[in-house]
Amino acid sequence: MKLGRLNHIGVATPSIADSIAFYRDVMGAETVHMPFDLPDQGVKVCFVDTPNTQIELIEPLGEDSPIHGFLAKNPAGGQHHLCYEVPDIHEAKAWFEAKGARVLGEPRIGAHGTLIFFVHPRDMGGVLTEIMESPRDELH
Amino acid sequence: MKLGRLNHIGVATPSIADSIAFYRDVMGAETVHMPFDLPDQGVKVCFVDTPNTQIELIEPLGEDSPIHGFLAKNPAGGQHHLCYEVPDIHEAKAWFEAKGARVLGEPRIGAHGTLIFFVHPRDMGGVLTEIMESPRDELH
Repeated sequence: MKLGRLNHIGVATPSIADSIAFYRDVMGAETVHMPFDLPDQGVKVCFVDTPNTQIELIEPLGEDSPIHGFLAKNPAGGQHHLCYEVPDIHEAKAWFEAKGARVLGEPRIGAHGTLIFFVHPRDMGGVLTEIMESPRDELH
Repeated sequence: MKLGRLNHIGVATPSIADSIAFYRDVMGAETVHMPFDLPDQGVKVCFVDTPNTQIELIEPLGEDSPIHGFLAKNPAGGQHHLCYEVPDIHEAKAWFEAKGARVLGEPRIGAHGTLIFFVHPRDMGGVLTEIMESPRDELH
């Protein structure tokens, strides 16, 4: 497997609204996409474009959100995960499992509408890593 | 100011040698640059190319390295900072200061040989942020 494009950096925040204001006013972001809910993953997300990748703002959605623990330790928010693209999600899952990395659950639909999975940070140099199948229109 | 290119993601590690093996063997990185010391910043660094940005592996160098505290909290390593490019480092410093963000020290030469500074994570949504003047040959 070849290291793929960095699709986005997941940044946890207690407030997407406040973070949008920060990325627009302080960081100078010009394109901020419409926030939306991903109820299956317990998060509200919002993509902010940089010239070469995206920031994915993630806010807890619901009481069981996996982001609550992160924000308890980091109340202001912070870097949560890195997401790399792969051409085939099932091949990627088999690859990481063969390397002994703990894949967290079965592939499921992610924030960009393609299949994704996460790999345990303990097997990834301390970095919670999301692996995402590239959107079809970006493969060509 | 416009949000610039994400030059790299700084990833702290207790061992650049081990991390290089991980990025090559597990992540599939094809281009890993030669590690080098940045004694003024108390770090050894190594850039790993992804198709659209870089990972900057950072290992403590010397007893006063600012990375020791991070590794004490995160012994396996992890995401340490994000670095964005700007066309003019002094304009960028004035911009962030006018926004009330705490710039940490004066601009100094960074890992890519251009001027850089860091901005305090408490003013950046919990993200330690490096601002870097673009290399001249990438401006055109």
